[in-house]
Amino acid sequence: MSFGFGVCREPSIELEGENNMSISVPPSNMHQHLHNVLQSGEGADISFKVKGETFPAHRIILASRSSVFRAELFGSMSESTASCIEIEDMEPQIFKALLQFIYTDMFPPSDDHTDEGVELDGDIMAQHLIVAADRYALDRLRLICEETLAKKINADNVVTTLALAAQHNCQQLKELCLDYISSSKILDSLIETDVFESFLVSCPSIYKQLLKKVASNRRT
Amino acid sequence: MSFGFGVCREPSIELEGENNMSISVPPSNMHQHLHNVLQSGEGADISFKVKGETFPAHRIILASRSSVFRAELFGSMSESTASCIEIEDMEPQIFKALLQFIYTDMFPPSDDHTDEGVELDGDIMAQHLIVAADRYALDRLRLICEETLAKKINADNVVTTLALAAQHNCQQLKELCLDYISSSKILDSLIETDVFESFLVSCPSIYKQLLKKVASNRRT
Repeated sequence: MSFGFGVCREPSIELEGENNMSISVPPSNMHQHLHNVLQSGEGADISFKVKGETFPAHRIILASRSSVFRAELFGSMSESTASCIEIEDMEPQIFKALLQFIYTDMFPPSDDHTDEGVELDGDIMAQHLIVAADRYALDRLRLICEETLAKKINADNVVTTLALAAQHNCQQLKELCLDYISSSKILDSLIETDVFESFLVSCPSIYKQLLKKVASNRRT
Repeated sequence: MSFGFGVCREPSIELEGENNMSISVPPSNMHQHLHNVLQSGEGADISFKVKGETFPAHRIILASRSSVFRAELFGSMSESTASCIEIEDMEPQIFKALLQFIYTDMFPPSDDHTDEGVELDGDIMAQHLIVAADRYALDRLRLICEETLAKKINADNVVTTLALAAQHNCQQLKELCLDYISSSKILDSLIETDVFESFLVSCPSIYKQLLKKVASNRRT
């Protein structure tokens, strides 16, 4: 059949505006398409070796999502011509989650995360992914992990969380930790602990910020 | 500073559940990242020549989104080894919109669409993109275009729209056109027109479907 549209003019019988006929359009499935490509490894042009596990990937997708990968894979660094890059200071499970975020913009991943033996606790995963997100300049992933940890701040973990936040450019999480410490009644107990003291010694800039907040709270 | 998290155990002072501290996470920006890559052409490993205009692109992104591109670019077809593919039966503006949809899952594109001289009317663009979406098996794009055209169905364009829908696997749009023709009072006028007659001659299966609908309407 060769009845081309736009070729014949139709007779002008009646002119109407928009009607209320509608067709339902499914939501975006791009994350699923890119996830399939990650899973299959088809067309992979780079691979990463992480503590014995190998992860095939696609340079252009990594570079489009991370300025650090972009510099590594398309810049003048030695990695730009390598076909395999070794990553020594990261757990395979963390690197896998990192790749899944890069390809899908989702964390935690909605799919095969549970069928692979031991699963990392969500908070531990978020802590490790903050380090990875900071390293590869994945700001949105870092914020998602900051949010996960912010919800769990309590007297037991606030110093650890504050240390992590201070080390890895988590401005919002750092502020929440400082607010929590300075506003809650735990400060007096915390001050006496070794972990708090060694943290303050190692991070004097935080010490000043905390002092300011406490002083400000006591004035109001 | 080397205050590692997870190394020291913090003192157990008080255990709380989830607090109400929150960090705002921005929405997904993956479409923007991939759009930037399309715009810059960095890392492109294939190009398309469409009536004199050249479009650099990335095989893996095309293949991840379209089974037709996947077969062309990673299968046994001659295109799989070509560095430039010529497309003769499509306007450059349509191919550009097609690429933008592939990279962003969005149509119409939200960005530089207006700064390029003559802009195609939205309906005409949707008509052409239905043809392109059908050719490259981009079902979601086809549905978005079907929806655009469904809202504009009127007596002036219903035959053209029906012909387009019948030719390019637009089941929902076809049904809406048939519903419109069989339920509205324009059928008597349409029947007398040459465009309607030639359409019915060229597409007897539609003729039967329309007849059934009209008969069914008259019984109720």
